[in-house]
Amino acid sequence: MTESIKPAAAFNAAEQVQNTAPQAPGRASIPIEPAAPANVLPTEETAAQAVRPFPNSRRIYVEGPRPDIRVPMRAISQSDTARLDGTLEKNPDVFVYDTSGDFGDPEKTVDIRRGLEARRSGWIEARGDTELLEAPTSRFAQARTADPKLAAVRFPNVPRPRRALPGRNVTQMHYARAGIVTPEMEFAAVRENCNRRAYVESLRELDADTRAMLLSQHPGAPYEAAFADEVSGEFVRAEIAAGRAILPANINHPESEPMVIGRNFLTKINANIGNSALGSSIAAEVEKLLWATRWGADTVMDLSTGKHIHETREWIVRNSPVPVGTVPLYQALEKVDGKAAELTWEIYRDTLIEQAEQGVDYFTIHAGVRLAHIPLTARRLTGIVSRGGSIMAGWCIAHHSDSFLYTHFEEICEILRSYDVAVSLGDGLRAGSIYDANDAAQMAELKTLGELTAIAHRHDVQVIIEGPGHIPMQRVMENVEAELRDCHEAPFYTLGPLVMDVAPGYDHITSAIGAAMIGWRGTAMLCYVTPKEHLGLPVKEDVRTGIVTYKIAAHAADLAKGLPGAQIRDNALSKARFEFRWEDQFNLSLDPELAASYHDETLPKPAMKQAHFCSMCGPQFCSMRITEDVRRWAQEHGVSQGEALEEGLKAQSRKFLEGGAQLYKDV
Amino acid sequence: MTESIKPAAAFNAAEQVQNTAPQAPGRASIPIEPAAPANVLPTEETAAQAVRPFPNSRRIYVEGPRPDIRVPMRAISQSDTARLDGTLEKNPDVFVYDTSGDFGDPEKTVDIRRGLEARRSGWIEARGDTELLEAPTSRFAQARTADPKLAAVRFPNVPRPRRALPGRNVTQMHYARAGIVTPEMEFAAVRENCNRRAYVESLRELDADTRAMLLSQHPGAPYEAAFADEVSGEFVRAEIAAGRAILPANINHPESEPMVIGRNFLTKINANIGNSALGSSIAAEVEKLLWATRWGADTVMDLSTGKHIHETREWIVRNSPVPVGTVPLYQALEKVDGKAAELTWEIYRDTLIEQAEQGVDYFTIHAGVRLAHIPLTARRLTGIVSRGGSIMAGWCIAHHSDSFLYTHFEEICEILRSYDVAVSLGDGLRAGSIYDANDAAQMAELKTLGELTAIAHRHDVQVIIEGPGHIPMQRVMENVEAELRDCHEAPFYTLGPLVMDVAPGYDHITSAIGAAMIGWRGTAMLCYVTPKEHLGLPVKEDVRTGIVTYKIAAHAADLAKGLPGAQIRDNALSKARFEFRWEDQFNLSLDPELAASYHDETLPKPAMKQAHFCSMCGPQFCSMRITEDVRRWAQEHGVSQGEALEEGLKAQSRKFLEGGAQLYKDV
Repeated sequence: MTESIKPAAAFNAAEQVQNTAPQAPGRASIPIEPAAPANVLPTEETAAQAVRPFPNSRRIYVEGPRPDIRVPMRAISQSDTARLDGTLEKNPDVFVYDTSGDFGDPEKTVDIRRGLEARRSGWIEARGDTELLEAPTSRFAQARTADPKLAAVRFPNVPRPRRALPGRNVTQMHYARAGIVTPEMEFAAVRENCNRRAYVESLRELDADTRAMLLSQHPGAPYEAAFADEVSGEFVRAEIAAGRAILPANINHPESEPMVIGRNFLTKINANIGNSALGSSIAAEVEKLLWATRWGADTVMDLSTGKHIHETREWIVRNSPVPVGTVPLYQALEKVDGKAAELTWEIYRDTLIEQAEQGVDYFTIHAGVRLAHIPLTARRLTGIVSRGGSIMAGWCIAHHSDSFLYTHFEEICEILRSYDVAVSLGDGLRAGSIYDANDAAQMAELKTLGELTAIAHRHDVQVIIEGPGHIPMQRVMENVEAELRDCHEAPFYTLGPLVMDVAPGYDHITSAIGAAMIGWRGTAMLCYVTPKEHLGLPVKEDVRTGIVTYKIAAHAADLAKGLPGAQIRDNALSKARFEFRWEDQFNLSLDPELAASYHDETLPKPAMKQAHFCSMCGPQFCSMRITEDVRRWAQEHGVSQGEALEEGLKAQSRKFLEGGAQLYKDV
Repeated sequence: MTESIKPAAAFNAAEQVQNTAPQAPGRASIPIEPAAPANVLPTEETAAQAVRPFPNSRRIYVEGPRPDIRVPMRAISQSDTARLDGTLEKNPDVFVYDTSGDFGDPEKTVDIRRGLEARRSGWIEARGDTELLEAPTSRFAQARTADPKLAAVRFPNVPRPRRALPGRNVTQMHYARAGIVTPEMEFAAVRENCNRRAYVESLRELDADTRAMLLSQHPGAPYEAAFADEVSGEFVRAEIAAGRAILPANINHPESEPMVIGRNFLTKINANIGNSALGSSIAAEVEKLLWATRWGADTVMDLSTGKHIHETREWIVRNSPVPVGTVPLYQALEKVDGKAAELTWEIYRDTLIEQAEQGVDYFTIHAGVRLAHIPLTARRLTGIVSRGGSIMAGWCIAHHSDSFLYTHFEEICEILRSYDVAVSLGDGLRAGSIYDANDAAQMAELKTLGELTAIAHRHDVQVIIEGPGHIPMQRVMENVEAELRDCHEAPFYTLGPLVMDVAPGYDHITSAIGAAMIGWRGTAMLCYVTPKEHLGLPVKEDVRTGIVTYKIAAHAADLAKGLPGAQIRDNALSKARFEFRWEDQFNLSLDPELAASYHDETLPKPAMKQAHFCSMCGPQFCSMRITEDVRRWAQEHGVSQGEALEEGLKAQSRKFLEGGAQLYKDV
């Protein structure tokens, strides 16, 4: 989806490697071995940056109902609180969702020439409904595999592809509807809960008072009950069976760590990577993959349109701990030298199989762009802004026919169900400006997407629905309502939306506003927008900004939806803030490195991180410190909760005034 | 209000001047003369940056109903569109609200040692209800004026203060309730309309076809009608009389350009500046004032708590084209060496008069913090986070009494009405975390603010109500409803709100989400939050980021409220974007400099700004270019609006295929 944005580094990391002396062998802290093929590997330095551990964090694994389900999480430890009575109060670890896979485990070394461990292989094999093929069945893949000129850029350890046995359907939706709770579903369920379940565990280690205080911080009483309705594997199954959620898990991407996308789960975010004709390299894309999953991308889309699309994708899939999406149309168009009218079903079909056998977990397919919709766009202010949409519109006009995506949709589903590739029905006619928002073309396409959803669901193919684009705030809700109504509650997956047009350079923000709102209303996954949207190629820092901004939108949505446990991290950070535990405040934040660096700009000394004030207000005016003084005073004088106010306060205040009445002390 | 954030430059601009060789005399393009006193003036370079004109923009003035009402605006010119038939299409100028005063007029030179022209003086004098005083009546101001040690930092041309004649009430609300439409109200009305009125004017110069096309871009038919309900001076008067809007216009700040704050007007934003004990200087604050109004701050608050508060304020007010707000409590506390319990009504009262006679347009007053509310905060996660609130809470406990702000509120109103200072009732008990949002303390204070509003309105004193803080999205609406209900529809003025706690370093974004939503629901003014919120002192770049982010929130709100004409700029920018008029796209944006620089990172050559593609997709994949090709094709073949589709398209598509069918040409 969201083919209008596609990050790629501004520099060519591969070229950098070639100009550099040979690297020393990998160290334990840098789990990427810098070795041949040099022209596709990130440099040791950039790779190290991409997998650098977060401060005061450690990797833990939460076990599921069977020992081979071990769900990775990041545990953030905190320092103690110095109580007013001089004693120390323990603060529990806070556990957060972790998308970085083995790259985020300092104990592990990943050789990106071999890729991640194929952890799901056993589960897939155990189902006995697939077979290993001798070689790719796509003609294009066969040609690429046989081409000696590609040896230098080819992933060195391409696995043999796997496919469903004839007549078998291997989708998670198929299992779900058969009543089977797969290990993937169990894994995803643990993942949905793990921050709160682990938090409850860590609370058990605390003394009763502290525990009671922390429990009181959670809205909805009693606390235990709020945590009791944990997501179960059975609940994940039921949501997938109903089509309200998907679990993207291509049988050819056994390296992926299962996750679930649906409106009754945590809101997910996608980051787009991929090269273009104008820039980037395989090395830069692998680096951006690591960078994206480090900062929290739940899925990545490889939107490559430049050189070596096939080979770039192999490197990405083999090293991706998260599901990978693509827009197969882009590659198909490359195969006909960019001449949309020459696209054929045969070329497209071969591309689907090529990518399905590499392990792509979901495909964006713009099958909803019908010939009859195209005239509805003629009077638009900004026409058709989706690349896939405009390509297919060109094709439809040239052939005066509905596209092969639409007419062959049943066959597409037959392919998808043989590998368990989910379909993300593309919004080829989404609005590219506020003026065009929610117009007839967009709504007509949405209805068609609903028809296609029903077809896919008949094949037990998992479906998500892509959404716009540009929508002013007051029209966001009608978009969600239309999607739920027309598309059988399939998960909604939106780009932003941007709530205005006049802020190029800040469209991560204009879109985060729309994303938070649409997420609150039930959108299951948000496609990120970087500051470079509409302007140019995002560099690595833009990817980071885009992801953190979308973690914000997703978290705001989770809070607003009232997901149990969503507020644990906010409460912990606010407590740390109030208690001037600066380091804890940084470490608990979505971007600890940036928070610490901003603080250090004005208060660089280590001692300042203990200081009970910050540079905004200076020592005398810190309201948090004053509040603490007020509390201390209240405690010393036995005043709390107002019960003593009327009787005793007058006398006490007299004493206080006589004693100097100085609430504020110099630091 | 919002005393928790207070920008100040990280460097001392005054010191920089001292280390620099004498500057050349000011040039025409740099309307600030670099001369003595060097230690309080910005450098020529930084001043030039702060007043640098925006590209392709010129200053125009729109006249009101009388010739001395000349409302400044920025007119952005556009290049022509190259039509498919080879002819050129004119694109009209787009007019935008301009807060930069004479600093934004390249024809004018402002000597900041003299301050801006006192343009409102004639209007004020003509009312005949005020008198010029010989000297300040505040004892503190008198002492500062007499102190020879302050000569080096003192503004050189302090005007004589003005005050209402005994028994007279000089507030805009008083005039409004007497049925008088003041020149200030007429000015503000023109300002509310001017972007659309001027746009209609500029449309008149276009040919009929272009005009028809542009008119069709505006939602709501007919276009002329949508623009007919312009804001009038009488409407401004009626809203002020009803207490639904304020026009902050101290008679001692005749340099200010009138503007109106209310939910039936454009959403406004405030930027906080001011020094602190830990950093900044007068030069840095003046520079930030220019910087803030250049980027679009509708008001600024001087939240200084460091050295030379009195003198810094004089420099700011004399050079501010926008209303200036303060929190007088901060300075009063400085006068008692930070010992809150020693604050007295007399000290505070003298401070109010001191600042009112300097020209401060609105005061944040935390009169809603009552003794009985304080125990409601004891079990909060983050206590009292408002500086003003915590100071007053300390005072209330020490004296076991309601504060002098509450008990003397009638006398406060008597002072305010003698200068026309508006009161911004501070939310001293606002929530500092999601956990504390909308709690009993906050809501109790809000009710008290409603009582105080009624008192102020009895004195014809203009009132706005400050709001939180930290609120999750789903609780924003109940906050607005409570404010409207409890506070007699007085304009709401909120800090953000931040919709989550876990993103320090990105709180301009977490708060812009809440700000856009609360603005849509009717909040009249949004107090900006910079990326440094919670972490440290914002530097100049943070001020810019904060303001542009809040321009985004305010504009999103204006679009969502459906304000007539709000979408003109979006439509113009989207049209430019679609037509690959890159420079126009940059120039029409909220931050032309950033947009252009992002574009140039990947496509630096001037020719690239004409190119019909951008670096994201490259030449072959540009969806906008493909759409243009589709349109051209449709036009060439006489196909449009679908009417010819069924009959003629099949034949035409055959021809098209025979002719090569190449929609995509290399650039």
